[in-house]
Amino acid sequence: MVFIGHLETPWTDRDTCPRNMTRAREAGKPARLIIEPSYRDGLAGLETTSHLVILSWLNHSPRNLIVQHPRHAASAKGVFALRSPARPNPIGLHVVRVTGFDAAMGVIDLEAIDVLDGTPVVDIKPYIPAIDAIPDADTGRAGSSA
Amino acid sequence: MVFIGHLETPWTDRDTCPRNMTRAREAGKPARLIIEPSYRDGLAGLETTSHLVILSWLNHSPRNLIVQHPRHAASAKGVFALRSPARPNPIGLHVVRVTGFDAAMGVIDLEAIDVLDGTPVVDIKPYIPAIDAIPDADTGRAGSSA
Repeated sequence: MVFIGHLETPWTDRDTCPRNMTRAREAGKPARLIIEPSYRDGLAGLETTSHLVILSWLNHSPRNLIVQHPRHAASAKGVFALRSPARPNPIGLHVVRVTGFDAAMGVIDLEAIDVLDGTPVVDIKPYIPAIDAIPDADTGRAGSSA
Repeated sequence: MVFIGHLETPWTDRDTCPRNMTRAREAGKPARLIIEPSYRDGLAGLETTSHLVILSWLNHSPRNLIVQHPRHAASAKGVFALRSPARPNPIGLHVVRVTGFDAAMGVIDLEAIDVLDGTPVVDIKPYIPAIDAIPDADTGRAGSSA
């Protein structure tokens, strides 16, 4: 795994960091994605995209919690039913709106994100609604505590 | 990185493997996600979820192609404007519909997926439309050749 960049966010401690993208959007605080110089050419063609999928590397999280009982959940759940950062491979998935883009400088301005300042990034993908948007997906109760 | 499972798919060579989830869904061939025994407890609570995000490890892909010119694209694009499997960290992102679920056996039946048979899996997350579905996202032209 290589880090292609990192996130500059308003969140410097876990207590105030939003625990999901809904909370992050509600907080109304922007963030920035900074791409390493050697990967900036990889941004070509992305300037027209309104939303990105960012895969982050949540390196502060424990990785051995296969079953978890979040404080706000009624019962314990498996890690794969949660969006918790504590997972076997600590990859975070964030669908974010782009508000500014400078490929040469390697800076992408974001509406909001739910990770700590300095979090490394391992991939960016264009969000493609034809394959990624399933508005009527049913979570049942899984993920409600994500 | 650890592999938490792998995918059993109908696609055994690159020439016939669908190049994106749209093509995979059109092909109408189901697939299976097999979870390693030591991670099966992590499925608890996921049985009510209609759709998953699967993160695969596309281990056959080159990792040094920062700018690419797909055959079906008009011009070269950066890797981060494409869903190509050739990327610095070869993580594939697939939003898939669940058609069957056996947590004890570690088997999840899937409507379709766009990867080769035997592809390792590094994470599963519940798909949560409130944070993951952006039906009106605008790709411009980025990702159109994904």
